[in-house]
Amino acid sequence: MNYKELLNSKNFNLVGAVSGGLDSCTITSWLHDKGFNLKCITVDLGQPDEDNIESISKRMKDCGASEAIIISGLEKLALFGLKVIQSQSKYEGGYWNTTGIARPVTIACMLDEFDSFNSSYLFHGATGRGNDQIRFELATKMLNPNINVYAPWRDEFFLQDFPGRTEMIEYCELRNLPIKSKSDSRYSTDANLLGLTHEAGDLENIELSPYDFVNPGMGVWPWDAKEKEELISISWKNGTPTHINGDEYNLVEIFTLLNKIGGEHGIGIGIHAIENRFLGIKSRGIYESPSMEILGETYEFLLQLVLDRRLRDYFSNISTTISKQIYDGFWFDTTTSVALNGLSKISNMISGTIILRLYKGKVYFERIENLNEINYSLYTDDSSMENLGEFNHVDSQGFVNILGLNAKNLGLKQKLSDPEN
Amino acid sequence: MNYKELLNSKNFNLVGAVSGGLDSCTITSWLHDKGFNLKCITVDLGQPDEDNIESISKRMKDCGASEAIIISGLEKLALFGLKVIQSQSKYEGGYWNTTGIARPVTIACMLDEFDSFNSSYLFHGATGRGNDQIRFELATKMLNPNINVYAPWRDEFFLQDFPGRTEMIEYCELRNLPIKSKSDSRYSTDANLLGLTHEAGDLENIELSPYDFVNPGMGVWPWDAKEKEELISISWKNGTPTHINGDEYNLVEIFTLLNKIGGEHGIGIGIHAIENRFLGIKSRGIYESPSMEILGETYEFLLQLVLDRRLRDYFSNISTTISKQIYDGFWFDTTTSVALNGLSKISNMISGTIILRLYKGKVYFERIENLNEINYSLYTDDSSMENLGEFNHVDSQGFVNILGLNAKNLGLKQKLSDPEN
Amino acid sequence: MNYKELLNSKNFNLVGAVSGGLDSCTITSWLHDKGFNLKCITVDLGQPDEDNIESISKRMKDCGASEAIIISGLEKLALFGLKVIQSQSKYEGGYWNTTGIARPVTIACMLDEFDSFNSSYLFHGATGRGNDQIRFELATKMLNPNINVYAPWRDEFFLQDFPGRTEMIEYCELRNLPIKSKSDSRYSTDANLLGLTHEAGDLENIELSPYDFVNPGMGVWPWDAKEKEELISISWKNGTPTHINGDEYNLVEIFTLLNKIGGEHGIGIGIHAIENRFLGIKSRGIYESPSMEILGETYEFLLQLVLDRRLRDYFSNISTTISKQIYDGFWFDTTTSVALNGLSKISNMISGTIILRLYKGKVYFERIENLNEINYSLYTDDSSMENLGEFNHVDSQGFVNILGLNAKNLGLKQKLSDPEN
Amino acid sequence: MNYKELLNSKNFNLVGAVSGGLDSCTITSWLHDKGFNLKCITVDLGQPDEDNIESISKRMKDCGASEAIIISGLEKLALFGLKVIQSQSKYEGGYWNTTGIARPVTIACMLDEFDSFNSSYLFHGATGRGNDQIRFELATKMLNPNINVYAPWRDEFFLQDFPGRTEMIEYCELRNLPIKSKSDSRYSTDANLLGLTHEAGDLENIELSPYDFVNPGMGVWPWDAKEKEELISISWKNGTPTHINGDEYNLVEIFTLLNKIGGEHGIGIGIHAIENRFLGIKSRGIYESPSMEILGETYEFLLQLVLDRRLRDYFSNISTTISKQIYDGFWFDTTTSVALNGLSKISNMISGTIILRLYKGKVYFERIENLNEINYSLYTDDSSMENLGEFNHVDSQGFVNILGLNAKNLGLKQKLSDPEN
Repeated sequence: MNYKELLNSKNFNLVGAVSGGLDSCTITSWLHDKGFNLKCITVDLGQPDEDNIESISKRMKDCGASEAIIISGLEKLALFGLKVIQSQSKYEGGYWNTTGIARPVTIACMLDEFDSFNSSYLFHGATGRGNDQIRFELATKMLNPNINVYAPWRDEFFLQDFPGRTEMIEYCELRNLPIKSKSDSRYSTDANLLGLTHEAGDLENIELSPYDFVNPGMGVWPWDAKEKEELISISWKNGTPTHINGDEYNLVEIFTLLNKIGGEHGIGIGIHAIENRFLGIKSRGIYESPSMEILGETYEFLLQLVLDRRLRDYFSNISTTISKQIYDGFWFDTTTSVALNGLSKISNMISGTIILRLYKGKVYFERIENLNEINYSLYTDDSSMENLGEFNHVDSQGFVNILGLNAKNLGLKQKLSDPEN
Repeated sequence: MNYKELLNSKNFNLVGAVSGGLDSCTITSWLHDKGFNLKCITVDLGQPDEDNIESISKRMKDCGASEAIIISGLEKLALFGLKVIQSQSKYEGGYWNTTGIARPVTIACMLDEFDSFNSSYLFHGATGRGNDQIRFELATKMLNPNINVYAPWRDEFFLQDFPGRTEMIEYCELRNLPIKSKSDSRYSTDANLLGLTHEAGDLENIELSPYDFVNPGMGVWPWDAKEKEELISISWKNGTPTHINGDEYNLVEIFTLLNKIGGEHGIGIGIHAIENRFLGIKSRGIYESPSMEILGETYEFLLQLVLDRRLRDYFSNISTTISKQIYDGFWFDTTTSVALNGLSKISNMISGTIILRLYKGKVYFERIENLNEINYSLYTDDSSMENLGEFNHVDSQGFVNILGLNAKNLGLKQKLSDPEN
Repeated sequence: MNYKELLNSKNFNLVGAVSGGLDSCTITSWLHDKGFNLKCITVDLGQPDEDNIESISKRMKDCGASEAIIISGLEKLALFGLKVIQSQSKYEGGYWNTTGIARPVTIACMLDEFDSFNSSYLFHGATGRGNDQIRFELATKMLNPNINVYAPWRDEFFLQDFPGRTEMIEYCELRNLPIKSKSDSRYSTDANLLGLTHEAGDLENIELSPYDFVNPGMGVWPWDAKEKEELISISWKNGTPTHINGDEYNLVEIFTLLNKIGGEHGIGIGIHAIENRFLGIKSRGIYESPSMEILGETYEFLLQLVLDRRLRDYFSNISTTISKQIYDGFWFDTTTSVALNGLSKISNMISGTIILRLYKGKVYFERIENLNEINYSLYTDDSSMENLGEFNHVDSQGFVNILGLNAKNLGLKQKLSDPEN
Repeated sequence: MNYKELLNSKNFNLVGAVSGGLDSCTITSWLHDKGFNLKCITVDLGQPDEDNIESISKRMKDCGASEAIIISGLEKLALFGLKVIQSQSKYEGGYWNTTGIARPVTIACMLDEFDSFNSSYLFHGATGRGNDQIRFELATKMLNPNINVYAPWRDEFFLQDFPGRTEMIEYCELRNLPIKSKSDSRYSTDANLLGLTHEAGDLENIELSPYDFVNPGMGVWPWDAKEKEELISISWKNGTPTHINGDEYNLVEIFTLLNKIGGEHGIGIGIHAIENRFLGIKSRGIYESPSMEILGETYEFLLQLVLDRRLRDYFSNISTTISKQIYDGFWFDTTTSVALNGLSKISNMISGTIILRLYKGKVYFERIENLNEINYSLYTDDSSMENLGEFNHVDSQGFVNILGLNAKNLGLKQKLSDPEN
């Protein structure tokens, strides 16, 4: 789809998701030049690299937007982050996919703004090669099937005008647009309250050590972290973290505080993955997410008290499903909704206070507080075993004998050729 | 089953799996007293806590064994360890289950020794409450269905004689048996070349910090580790590690060397888990496995080059299966054999040299060497993307549009009540 | 556990689950003789082979029970049956496990009857080799951990007295107990409202054709069925069947009516499976379940309208889980409860009227009524596709091109040796 | 991609996959008119609706092809069909996806024919809305990444010339092209040796009964089938069917013969499914596959002898994977290759002779022959149980007691609010 088709179909009013950077300025100005009437929306997701989010509106207006507003997405983002922790859904088993969580939040925060602007077209600055364009598209269509998406980075005319970053800078400087002067980075970064992703540029070369040229944004590398370990306590109630070191906080505060505490210890800083993108190509990223890492580990420790083997299997299956759904942009998909509901009874069983040791990039289980006050915990030490009745060694013999029947049958009938497999 | 039934059925010749500790001495002597003819076998698994494994034979003879031998299981154990790494099968997603790997090795090494001793009964010193009794039973029955297992710790008469550790010590001292004087430990430890497990005793109390009273056996706690990070290179060829820092080693040497290197950095030391035992109760353990951790992480980095999304899914499914199989003692089960074969084509694709950074308990991906020489790697940086043809942004539009059809349909038909799930 | 231990522990009051057959009479009388005070409970599950369930109470009293009552479990059984259909959980992919569903119903119906009888012991007549003993045990312990289970068929003394069926008949005849004269069957049958299972006896010989000697209990073999096909319509609302041929019925009536209609067409009669029992041995069974088969197929047809690929995957995973849980007796397990909840949002989307063709043992989809009134249906014929926007063939080209990138990469890098696999 | 781009890039030589129907004639003639040099290949897949496949070459030449040949794909198709049976991979659990199997066979048979024609472009007649375009694309790219695919049905110019079927007929009649006169069908059919698919046209209306207007192509509807049941025996050796009723046949003969025998009984005729296409829309199809259905059911009966619970789980997982892979066109994908290899040890265990009863659309297990000669079978009737040792009822008690510990713990700690879930 190109801008001419939009004009031809009389869709002059566009609502854009903008971050305020070079892309936003260029796209807004270019579309304004082409004759569109623009409303620019910036959703505040606690971007740690953005010092003054309010200034974005002014910049966007300077670029030609007739309206420009900031909407806070922090609470929604924190809530989505919590659901990701409750489902322990790391992408490809490896990292907290904090960028993937943020995209649907942005869309969800914007959708009320279309009617008053008499618009049914959303534009965004995501490229045609990444996952984000898909996440924007799917979230929009699932939440409001009547809104369409226009992506300049997939418009042949825009691409002709801007083959690269240099042309965008020239374009903006020529028009005296308020782009922030920013030293050329060797890679690109996306950040929000939950975490941060570095990728592209020199990071594409996996024969280079990333630690030589990447600067952590949410803390320090583990080797630069505090020398001394730190103990903190985190309390959960029915699946939600409520207290840190005994003090009560709301969810946004908890993410904020744990980013600070964890970042200083290098927790969750420098997670490395070569991932499979939705479009079938691989990319390498460096991830940072101190708060997600700390909360996620704590949640796992609590899960270990509550899940028996059968429930662990069930949980893992759904966790894998949700992880893929979120990465692929299916947050508002029926399947995600159903799957999250499928975990709600488990989350509701997760309560307790855990003391953690933070040290040089890692979270260690130190101890649990007041185990006997934790409902739903199946953990039984020797003393509590007595409640279950004596563990009879004759019963074990019976148990082992019954298992042995199947084993003997296999030994007699199916001994495959190579015992070492 | 009790010893009287054995005597009644004229099974006088027993072959035992013994480690040489207090249990081994007590059981051997007690069975000898009851009139059995005993052959004691110690399988050398590189127990790091055993300084002189050869001395065990003499001690067992002093306890009444008519024969006592040492059999090396090191190569088999290393091979089994490699298969576990190739399948990335950590138990309940959390730790390398090195004890579970070792049990079937012990049995496999012993089974040739029964005929010459005219025996069809194996005895062992595993308790009636743990997983090991099951692992011994299943491995035995699957490899040789004609051999039966007798476990004194499930024999009511033995249990009457030895209600606890104190009675065993008294029994041995009274008979002047060669038990090693060993200061009372607050927990018990099982160790082999691949790793080490601490559990039971005071470790059952999860309100206590384990770091206050557990002593690492294969290295140091991360907070006691070297101050300086270390870079090492590990090379793999067709699924097998072959070189460390450019020098070629066999598998046993590789595990040994990486235990030393990794242990000094606290790698894999202090992994904590509350696990679900086979018998349905939970137990807490502290795990150490420097070499498994280093090799496992390296293997995962290489997998990320080779597995696309579909193959990653396949791999993860089988990995989960194998992990459970091994934990439960089903190493020689048809399913394990079939599942390992189901991964062999993948292992065969894993080659390459990775440089790792070891620091304070963690392994970091530093860089890869000679990416373009790595067959089967699907990773494409920007330059190599050109081989695949231009990534057309119009194609992305088409891709997104097609996905959007399904999304729009869902948005129209299945918008469930709560978008936040 | 044997009866002497019960007496020694002063547990004189026992509550039994009895069916009224030979086993029930023998066990009740034998326990009465040993000095126990007995309350016999028969849960009415709509056993199609039981003509007069009320007469059982009298018989049980004649056998020595001090109390004997009938409790209706029909509504609960129908509800459980519905949940099984909603989860499409056939055991090992093959058959409706109607016996496995019934056991926990029996226990759930009985548990209120213990306190008033001052009893904490339940007895049942299930053997020591089957699944039912496990189902009874688990349901009891999960619903009321304070109640214990005593199984005469695992009591060495009872087994000594009754090595076989013959001894039971002799025992009852000698005492003039009211056993129903029943011609010797070549196999055993368990039946309830939902379905029927034949197994054991001559059925163990799988070299014999079962159709030569098994008599269907809920209808006729397909080859004996009506010559003419029959069309019926079944309507569902939010996951529950409500109407047959336009007439409204409650759940028990629906199962009853569909058993009759389906049985005459041989629907679900003669399903054959060699299954893996919980205890690790295989057994062969012949299954009948007309109503489950008809409702299950209808539900699947409706699911096909609602589930997209992602939700189908999710559904299948949970379905497999629930199937195993129920077979193994874990109906009241946390995992089953959580998993059923994990499907509830899907069931709630299932509504609509389907016309089926019943013919000679099979259910055929004939047509659907008023498709456009079915909420949540994602099915779009050519006309309704227009609502989604034109299906652009250029988009397909883009979609295919993007997929082709990954394919080409695989072709270049991972062509394994044998293209035929 | 349109034909002008092809001409501009000097790709004048095209190799086409043609079936000889209206589409083939139109496309070939149109491309010839545009100036291309064409080689038309028809892969013989045993299309039951094609009486004289040899005549296609002449017709294609009449339409302008400079070369036109027939290549037999029967043996490869039969082999692929067997692998599908060995993996029991029905699509979405419902039907044998015989069209999906055939597409990669066609490509694999053609790829040797490009070099001699100096061509690197393949064309095909699949539409831009279905799965087949994807299957052709993926098979081509995976087997030979240097060959590209051109699809006229995604070429805007071709689409302009031929908005519908009428224009194609006019075009061909005007040029006197040898299209087969074919009465207008109310739906379209794709057929090969393994099976047949009816879809589109009036079949899109699921409020219509398909039995009123669809004509079976491989046999008869069950209600039109023979009145009398038929017994047949099928023998398998190491995963391959070798004999029918005691006579040895090769694989192509077996599929052919079973299609005939089964078709007369309506076996596998009329399978109905509303499926999820790769592109995210749903479509309704009617399927026929007598031979696949008979062989598939027999294989499942044999699997039931060999797979224990653990191996059944493993098998089911891989089966699901392969089913999706094939449907989506990933036959030559690394994952399919690896997954099929992951089943090879299981297939190798499947041997034996089973007697089936065929009756009115269904296959019934009648009996097995010479069970004791079947290696790897784990089935044990009462007599063979003795080989495993007495099944001790005290062991059952122990087994049940151990399970009860976990159950009691759950009952004490996790009784969720609603026991009925």
